[in-house]
Amino acid sequence: MTRLRDLGAVPGYLPPGANNAITDVPGVRVGHVTLVSGDGRLTPGAGPVRTGVTAILPHAGNLYRQKVAAAVKTINGFGKATGFEQIRERGVIETPIILTNTLNVGRAADAVIAYMLQDNPDIGVTAGTVCPVVGECNDGFVNDLQGRHVHQEHVWQAITTASSGPVAEGNVGAGTGTQCFQFKGGIGTASRRVGRYTLGALVQSNYGLRRDLLVLGAPIGQHFLDKLLPQPGPGSIMMVLATDAPFDSRQLERLAMRAAFGLARTGSFCQDGSGDFVIAFSTANPWPHYSLGEAPADDAQPATRMAESGPVMDEFFLAVVETIEEAILNSLAAAHTLTGRDGNTLHALPHDQLVELLRHYRRL
Amino acid sequence: MTRLRDLGAVPGYLPPGANNAITDVPGVRVGHVTLVSGDGRLTPGAGPVRTGVTAILPHAGNLYRQKVAAAVKTINGFGKATGFEQIRERGVIETPIILTNTLNVGRAADAVIAYMLQDNPDIGVTAGTVCPVVGECNDGFVNDLQGRHVHQEHVWQAITTASSGPVAEGNVGAGTGTQCFQFKGGIGTASRRVGRYTLGALVQSNYGLRRDLLVLGAPIGQHFLDKLLPQPGPGSIMMVLATDAPFDSRQLERLAMRAAFGLARTGSFCQDGSGDFVIAFSTANPWPHYSLGEAPADDAQPATRMAESGPVMDEFFLAVVETIEEAILNSLAAAHTLTGRDGNTLHALPHDQLVELLRHYRRL
Amino acid sequence: MTRLRDLGAVPGYLPPGANNAITDVPGVRVGHVTLVSGDGRLTPGAGPVRTGVTAILPHAGNLYRQKVAAAVKTINGFGKATGFEQIRERGVIETPIILTNTLNVGRAADAVIAYMLQDNPDIGVTAGTVCPVVGECNDGFVNDLQGRHVHQEHVWQAITTASSGPVAEGNVGAGTGTQCFQFKGGIGTASRRVGRYTLGALVQSNYGLRRDLLVLGAPIGQHFLDKLLPQPGPGSIMMVLATDAPFDSRQLERLAMRAAFGLARTGSFCQDGSGDFVIAFSTANPWPHYSLGEAPADDAQPATRMAESGPVMDEFFLAVVETIEEAILNSLAAAHTLTGRDGNTLHALPHDQLVELLRHYRRL
Amino acid sequence: MTRLRDLGAVPGYLPPGANNAITDVPGVRVGHVTLVSGDGRLTPGAGPVRTGVTAILPHAGNLYRQKVAAAVKTINGFGKATGFEQIRERGVIETPIILTNTLNVGRAADAVIAYMLQDNPDIGVTAGTVCPVVGECNDGFVNDLQGRHVHQEHVWQAITTASSGPVAEGNVGAGTGTQCFQFKGGIGTASRRVGRYTLGALVQSNYGLRRDLLVLGAPIGQHFLDKLLPQPGPGSIMMVLATDAPFDSRQLERLAMRAAFGLARTGSFCQDGSGDFVIAFSTANPWPHYSLGEAPADDAQPATRMAESGPVMDEFFLAVVETIEEAILNSLAAAHTLTGRDGNTLHALPHDQLVELLRHYRRL
Repeated sequence: MTRLRDLGAVPGYLPPGANNAITDVPGVRVGHVTLVSGDGRLTPGAGPVRTGVTAILPHAGNLYRQKVAAAVKTINGFGKATGFEQIRERGVIETPIILTNTLNVGRAADAVIAYMLQDNPDIGVTAGTVCPVVGECNDGFVNDLQGRHVHQEHVWQAITTASSGPVAEGNVGAGTGTQCFQFKGGIGTASRRVGRYTLGALVQSNYGLRRDLLVLGAPIGQHFLDKLLPQPGPGSIMMVLATDAPFDSRQLERLAMRAAFGLARTGSFCQDGSGDFVIAFSTANPWPHYSLGEAPADDAQPATRMAESGPVMDEFFLAVVETIEEAILNSLAAAHTLTGRDGNTLHALPHDQLVELLRHYRRL
Repeated sequence: MTRLRDLGAVPGYLPPGANNAITDVPGVRVGHVTLVSGDGRLTPGAGPVRTGVTAILPHAGNLYRQKVAAAVKTINGFGKATGFEQIRERGVIETPIILTNTLNVGRAADAVIAYMLQDNPDIGVTAGTVCPVVGECNDGFVNDLQGRHVHQEHVWQAITTASSGPVAEGNVGAGTGTQCFQFKGGIGTASRRVGRYTLGALVQSNYGLRRDLLVLGAPIGQHFLDKLLPQPGPGSIMMVLATDAPFDSRQLERLAMRAAFGLARTGSFCQDGSGDFVIAFSTANPWPHYSLGEAPADDAQPATRMAESGPVMDEFFLAVVETIEEAILNSLAAAHTLTGRDGNTLHALPHDQLVELLRHYRRL
Repeated sequence: MTRLRDLGAVPGYLPPGANNAITDVPGVRVGHVTLVSGDGRLTPGAGPVRTGVTAILPHAGNLYRQKVAAAVKTINGFGKATGFEQIRERGVIETPIILTNTLNVGRAADAVIAYMLQDNPDIGVTAGTVCPVVGECNDGFVNDLQGRHVHQEHVWQAITTASSGPVAEGNVGAGTGTQCFQFKGGIGTASRRVGRYTLGALVQSNYGLRRDLLVLGAPIGQHFLDKLLPQPGPGSIMMVLATDAPFDSRQLERLAMRAAFGLARTGSFCQDGSGDFVIAFSTANPWPHYSLGEAPADDAQPATRMAESGPVMDEFFLAVVETIEEAILNSLAAAHTLTGRDGNTLHALPHDQLVELLRHYRRL
Repeated sequence: MTRLRDLGAVPGYLPPGANNAITDVPGVRVGHVTLVSGDGRLTPGAGPVRTGVTAILPHAGNLYRQKVAAAVKTINGFGKATGFEQIRERGVIETPIILTNTLNVGRAADAVIAYMLQDNPDIGVTAGTVCPVVGECNDGFVNDLQGRHVHQEHVWQAITTASSGPVAEGNVGAGTGTQCFQFKGGIGTASRRVGRYTLGALVQSNYGLRRDLLVLGAPIGQHFLDKLLPQPGPGSIMMVLATDAPFDSRQLERLAMRAAFGLARTGSFCQDGSGDFVIAFSTANPWPHYSLGEAPADDAQPATRMAESGPVMDEFFLAVVETIEEAILNSLAAAHTLTGRDGNTLHALPHDQLVELLRHYRRL
């Protein structure tokens, strides 16, 4: 797997974490299930299949019992992401975050519920309900979208095989069939160290017009217009941010807003058809679950909170912009050419030409 | 089926439509599927079942091809309603609106997708995606919530059997197992005539503490405290507003905000655990569907819009408050006592005592 | 000064604080300046004057150096309140909160800046800027609105004379010329004890149609329709909530939303022309000011936070609803008949008739 | 006055209007008043003065009687912009849009009210109120901010001298004392033709760190780090968008969101201290004013609305991104070196070096 830095390109100023991945945030794990089967003409409901599911687990414990502070930001709401209302109201996430294809959100949400019931058999009985968080992109250019081929077993497998350490990128999991600037895109990740903390991003890239692609500010996309195939439909991007800094929900929403700035650096102008969503969480100061009618002995609890001075916030804001930009470019660098339904092909961005062009534009 | 007005009680000033129902808005149809089976002890996943599904269809045509202007308002976001991000961004609804139980949202959303594919086989192929809109309440006090007993066939049946005319209320459809102020609640509806237009509301009631119930402002709930059984868990309310007045999405959001005022009139103080959501749509000026890359010959199209003068808006705002209040009270009036899981019983509000108390408080 | 409880009427369940006033929250102070001069025909720009200014100070220290956690909620945004964008972003208030008349917001905001410069001469030099928070109602039915008669000296006087203890209500300060349900309204306040904490509300009431007035749910307004004079223009209501419970900004916004439910209990249906705004703050866990480029030695700081269990939140939500309802009714109870421009008269709600009617409706 | 295109640099694909200015939108006018006086050491309240005011008039008629459809978007709310609540609620602007310095917002808002009273003497008497819209940046690095030197006469002069045709850029009006990436910035403007329509932008630039400046994607700022003087405080940017396409308020908010993407293209990462606000309006389909209690004979009125297909929206979204980027770069290109309080100097970006660097990076 090739990453952007393997090509010599380094976006931004801040140092990455050990794996330059969202899993550099202690406790965060990622799992992928990749579904590829069939070839040739689309038979709606039957295949070919080029899709998958990616699970991001904020910590290794019982997420329902120890919820993480969270926020969402909708940059462009043309998408089917679910679970956002409760995150806005209560400021927490209480399940793994699942990414998949557009028409599979209902099934994936249902699978998350089933998964959560295993360790929390009191859900819906005495404990209250549970709010699955699922995001999506449209991989219908290469995948039989109508088939909704991601089933409960795949969602569970992505969750149970999630691990810390390096994260597979490109044509994997929820990125199996997605595109980025009309090249093959998919999953990408990156991280930054900010003082004693880490901030990481993971994206499912699926947006953009080839002509617009910028790499380190250089107009790379312009050099590939003659090779442009029929255009995939309007895309989307799911952006997930994780940190161990003790930000609260309001502050996390401020971080999430900055994801738009990282996205813009790659050339996006936030197309009408692109569902661009950000989910941000902090692993610090988890919130305990209270069952129906349950209250703590002391309603005021000790916690830490991040100072909201310019220098403190700005380092994190910059980290968001840098990790989103790099995660997207990693999704491009790691992807390889894929042919799906009806012979539709998403070409990988050629590394050698990219390097040459970055030299031409004095970015290497 | 008894309705509030059958008891002599009339909330508000404005005249109702022919059926005093959301279906008084021309073209709007409602369908219910009620699921009741099993008795006795809860076996999670198996039963007893006391739940259902309600479908609201904004018009009789192909909703995907002729989308209706719409808005959502989250009064308290502790809930799992889905489809809201896209309504906020694009200002339209393109599917039937489905109400069901909390843990069934994923399955219901999936069923809506499958339903839409029938008449729109280009979804996910050339037409773009589709955004199901599903709301929910928690009926777990009487229902085996974990079982997610609402399946595709039930959702489809609610859609295909939807009709105009009178609407069944109380223990039907999505209101089969819900409570209201710790009495049996469920589905309720009401409408108002405003000039040449109609505004209608339909609610799935499932919230409130008995002590707080107000009927026409009278503290009815206070008189039933000795009969109070173990408390159902925190509830919710889904509120759907329909009109044929040509409001745009921003104006519909203004209408939706007023639903909180109707809700408050019944005694709600908007509890922490109550997911209180409003979905509002107008059947006027439908928006055509555009497939990928498709644009109209003329990008500026004729439409009508509602004047935003005080007198015009105020009549509609009042209509929202009155229909929400009356729809909730209708859900109480029409409901009958229900026993579900573990023998848990939701008692109907006794009509005779209600009438007597309203007389006592000089509200009749 | 008569208050609602002096008439025997008690809204809600929770116990009030010592003075049943926003100043029961330790450290909170309120000051009023009342401007009444001239009589007879309106000479725009010259008089008559029936207006004023009210200042709410969250604590006795330097608010700029020790900012209070805060949130705003716009129920209906037809108003000119200022300072809201920064409160939403940063979650704090750093000046006194000023209430005045509609066209005076600019001058009052300017006066707050001048006031803040006294103790913080580094503002605009090395410390960054300052964000005045000003709300307003339209008292133009009796007041020469165009004259903008509230000057810097009045704003400063309201701030410097602010005190703890009982709060003057009715025709005082920013409530001098306002109406409530077409009776004379003005300033009202109330508080509730919630465990070891206090929650207080202060309102500037200026909204509603007489026919709609509810007192403890009884349709009082209906009994005064024959005495109805020419209608004042669309009004507004400013609602300020204070507490010493350590809520964060997101939680305070949840509290602020419930103010709509208190407002609705008095009969409001949130008219088009009514600017209905809520400002909520907590005196716990103040946020220090950081000057340009300044950061703390340790970016993570200890704080407390409120548990977000149902029982904890619900008590506070109820306290919001009760204090808003009672503060509004106090503004009516305390007000006395006022004649202003063009002989326009706002009649006080007659106490004896109110008591009689509450008895009639079995609310006393 | 030098503009970016005079240096050979052209951002984006779309063709500009006749003057590449916001005034290319028919009817839109811009006026500036520039205040420069005094030198040397800061005497707070007295000088030196390096500030001003810029007025944008959506059309040449009575704005109060013919309001323009409008939306606002707060990218980062650390700022004192006023009037936003009413724009969100009612979707219109009814006064000139005023830009000035941070501490002058109150005085400028008051001046707008006074201005509006001239042609609308019924405001505050029978017509209802008026909502001034004022934005700001902090020019305190060179200007005596505490002095609030922009008075009513200056605001009025900016309004009454506003004109169509070319717009002065750089150190003029509200941009007199502002900085951009620690160079001298100020006012900038640009426009794009989209089919038969025009979209224009005007910015007051005052944000960014020199190291981050991108011009056409090239890291220009990196080449000027050795010349960096003491850093101005955190800045802001006000972005105003105008179009004659018949977008409604919700659609205009979608356009406004894309301004963040244009801003990001210049290197911004949206710093904590930067108040980044967007105001967007359409001159099509003006909304009439209704006085108190006034309603039209027919409450449904004919209007046009823009199709919301991908191709239609995407052209406008792109136009927003391009005009914001170019307007910012124009503010840099047109600015000249300015020395203000305490000898603080904001250096102009040297054109010759810029051109040389753009060639180096193969962007020319």
